[in-house]
Amino acid sequence: MSGFYLTQALHRAIQQRSGHLATRCAGREHTWAQFGDRVARMAAVLRGLGVSAGERVGMMSMNSDRYLEYYYATWWAGGVVNPVNIRWSPAEVAYSLDDCDTAILIVDDAFQGAVADLRARSKALRTVIHCGDGATPEGMLGLEALIAEATPIDDAMRSGDDLAGVFYTGGTTGFPKGVMLSHTNLASNALSNVAEQIVMPDSVTLFAAPMFHLANGAAMLAGMSFATPTVFVPAFTPVGVLEIIQAERVTQALLVPTMIQMLVDHPDLPKYDTSSMRSVLYGASVISEGVMRRALAAFPNARFSQAYGMTELSPCATILPAWYHTPEGQKAGKMRSGGRATFTTEVRIVDAEDREVPRGTVGEICARGPGVMLGYWNKPELTKAAIRDGWMHTGDAGYMDEDGFVFVVDRVKDMIVSGGENVYSAEVENAIAQHPAVGASAVIGIPSEQWGESVHAVVVLKPGQQASAEEIIAHCKTLIAGYKCPRSVEFSEALPVSGAGKVLKTKLREPFWQGQERGVA
Amino acid sequence: MSGFYLTQALHRAIQQRSGHLATRCAGREHTWAQFGDRVARMAAVLRGLGVSAGERVGMMSMNSDRYLEYYYATWWAGGVVNPVNIRWSPAEVAYSLDDCDTAILIVDDAFQGAVADLRARSKALRTVIHCGDGATPEGMLGLEALIAEATPIDDAMRSGDDLAGVFYTGGTTGFPKGVMLSHTNLASNALSNVAEQIVMPDSVTLFAAPMFHLANGAAMLAGMSFATPTVFVPAFTPVGVLEIIQAERVTQALLVPTMIQMLVDHPDLPKYDTSSMRSVLYGASVISEGVMRRALAAFPNARFSQAYGMTELSPCATILPAWYHTPEGQKAGKMRSGGRATFTTEVRIVDAEDREVPRGTVGEICARGPGVMLGYWNKPELTKAAIRDGWMHTGDAGYMDEDGFVFVVDRVKDMIVSGGENVYSAEVENAIAQHPAVGASAVIGIPSEQWGESVHAVVVLKPGQQASAEEIIAHCKTLIAGYKCPRSVEFSEALPVSGAGKVLKTKLREPFWQGQERGVA
Repeated sequence: MSGFYLTQALHRAIQQRSGHLATRCAGREHTWAQFGDRVARMAAVLRGLGVSAGERVGMMSMNSDRYLEYYYATWWAGGVVNPVNIRWSPAEVAYSLDDCDTAILIVDDAFQGAVADLRARSKALRTVIHCGDGATPEGMLGLEALIAEATPIDDAMRSGDDLAGVFYTGGTTGFPKGVMLSHTNLASNALSNVAEQIVMPDSVTLFAAPMFHLANGAAMLAGMSFATPTVFVPAFTPVGVLEIIQAERVTQALLVPTMIQMLVDHPDLPKYDTSSMRSVLYGASVISEGVMRRALAAFPNARFSQAYGMTELSPCATILPAWYHTPEGQKAGKMRSGGRATFTTEVRIVDAEDREVPRGTVGEICARGPGVMLGYWNKPELTKAAIRDGWMHTGDAGYMDEDGFVFVVDRVKDMIVSGGENVYSAEVENAIAQHPAVGASAVIGIPSEQWGESVHAVVVLKPGQQASAEEIIAHCKTLIAGYKCPRSVEFSEALPVSGAGKVLKTKLREPFWQGQERGVA
Repeated sequence: MSGFYLTQALHRAIQQRSGHLATRCAGREHTWAQFGDRVARMAAVLRGLGVSAGERVGMMSMNSDRYLEYYYATWWAGGVVNPVNIRWSPAEVAYSLDDCDTAILIVDDAFQGAVADLRARSKALRTVIHCGDGATPEGMLGLEALIAEATPIDDAMRSGDDLAGVFYTGGTTGFPKGVMLSHTNLASNALSNVAEQIVMPDSVTLFAAPMFHLANGAAMLAGMSFATPTVFVPAFTPVGVLEIIQAERVTQALLVPTMIQMLVDHPDLPKYDTSSMRSVLYGASVISEGVMRRALAAFPNARFSQAYGMTELSPCATILPAWYHTPEGQKAGKMRSGGRATFTTEVRIVDAEDREVPRGTVGEICARGPGVMLGYWNKPELTKAAIRDGWMHTGDAGYMDEDGFVFVVDRVKDMIVSGGENVYSAEVENAIAQHPAVGASAVIGIPSEQWGESVHAVVVLKPGQQASAEEIIAHCKTLIAGYKCPRSVEFSEALPVSGAGKVLKTKLREPFWQGQERGVA
């Protein structure tokens, strides 16, 4: 063994805080000694079921203490986690299990009903373990009974470049890819986040974002460093989160901007005591200044930090620390950025030939460092295309200012090149969104003999509202440069979205580009 | 390239703080842009002199900005640092250069006079570069002229398990050993120290401890994460340090306890403004409560953190955070400890059979994690003896309390086994030290047919003072258990000490043990 190992934080927790509270969930409480014992027993169970070094174990579940135990028990047994995206269709889940040959799947009460269908679709799935509170369904093993009978085993001590997890991502780009992350990948990113002070000692941590996703995973791994208590909501609801914050005196949580927005705009917010909150980490997208202002008021004692990254970067690449989430910070113009390269990441912006572009120029955001994934499972060509000369090419378009702050402007592939000018779909969508009749929109490039690509908008109107294509275009011309405005507008009932809620622009572009290659990668 | 790389902090510094002050030394000032440019040029110089991947480069110098440039230029060129212990004899220095085949040595004005002797003794030494302010001596290359002519090169991007440094240690145990540390070893330890908040953003860092040693090295690497300005004293003197703290408004420094003692006991202390100091990291030995109290008064705005470790652990294994350096912390009894395992270290205490001992029981302190050295240069047997099953055996005897705090009591090999009881020489020496006539003492085990080993004290009296062996023994009996008290006392003019100031107990034991094996490892 050499290098980082993810179980180290658990060893420290047991050594330094054995009698302290580890998890409280659905009426259950475990100290770190108990948590460690359960992990070592559950690892024995997995070992008994054939989990040897590097073997994948899946979990399909709402948030709970058992989800946290699953991560550490799998690593303790020497296995590799494959947390299932619970928003995916059965076909997508079966694909992700089969792709990396996951034979063992743990399900809770909420997902036990999905098992029959999964068994029919998946070739790899062999053993299903039920970790719910109800009776163990026919054909599944009951986790609690197995844990009670098991004899704890020693930590398998996988470490360094050993595979720790396969995280499936990329529903938006057609087919899911298994991102392979090592112990060093995940543990170095977690330590960097501790150094950025996004988690604090003497905290009570809430897991409100889905635990299969590395956004919450980043907070989970960093939080383990201090071995403070964690509480859970099965899934995010504004009232559920406000209630647990008040009841458990929660001090820190990772929340995505839409969750923050739902919380701060909820009519019952003033009824709850949120004064315990001291730290909110958010990511995945930039937060609007209005929501941020309301969030600062809603959590008066909390520091907000933003992270930008992706699963392939384990996941954080940049952090915007708390200081910039202030009126002073807003004035400095940094709050719209995703922050600067973390302690373990180097970031640069490159052109299509991988040359670094001057500060302020938009290009593709690239990152290198110990967080860069090992690669995509079974996809060496995709891996080679994504990681070039050690640099992970994020597919995000952005620019860097003189102080190293990174501003994300679009997905590279959603960027439209029209008449030699780059048009960022996000900027156009922001302009369209300000029209009072518009509910949602997606802006794409479509083929144009004259311009190469032409800016095309797909618009969903608010119920009962009306607007013409000409009105939308005229509205945009009051806000952004002419060449950025849509040349054509199409109205639609709804936008096609992925399980994770991202608009599937590939689907929207498809009918326009049949038989043609887009110039943009 | 994969994993951690030590130059990353420099890339970030150049990207995020290019126009900010990097170093101020002897009237010279460099921004991070200038520092980065000098490093890339100096790397070109080293490359031109034959430094390819993994090649060692030595430096023998007082503290200066050029020492910092040396570290980063060597890594930028792909080389391996071999910083020379400036307290060693020419024979020891030549041994350390030859042992790991260091052909290139950089010397400053203070050590240019040692070169002729070194050249005569060393087979490996080929090229000497002079980095002083005076004229370049005959037969040496002038660094500044070479840098001025050089064309900056790209970072060689060595990383992960690649060798980054060979640090010679162990003068006290007979012959120096070259501790091989990788990029991951050093960078992971540095990041962990950032996470422990021993360094802070918006700081002015002072290098007062010798820069060849990893104690200062730990502060250096952690401090680079924030890329704040660094100032230097060529070598520690109480007045020199007080003057630069006042003049530069220094906020943080690593100091060893003897330095702290000299500072707080200096008669001129009240004349200086030390209010800028916000963080003091100390290590290498425990500080007495009296000195700590005076230190808290001398640096009223500073938080004190203690680190315990060794070069073989890159170097920190445990940290005692600032909180325990308070009257409240003293009451909790933790201040006498070296703290708890850091974020990247696991610590345990084992018996001679490598079994973990119960809390409170003294055994050998062991540590594992990404900081554990690659091994000793060219000494596979010693490496195998030191690192067993991934655990570095420190050779330090200590115990752990229920909360995971580690208390160091002695070197294992200095522990005396008398009549089946373990006697810790440090405890006996502390008792002897309280006799008013005693200046210094060293307690060793000597052969005894009746007891296996018998406790023997070598005592140096203060000038003009007198005491008999019987008096010393009687004095000890008032303080410690009878079996721990010396059975024999020998008076001496002085104790044999190593270049680093450690008492050479091996030398003291030698005459007693000729032809016999000690039972203690």
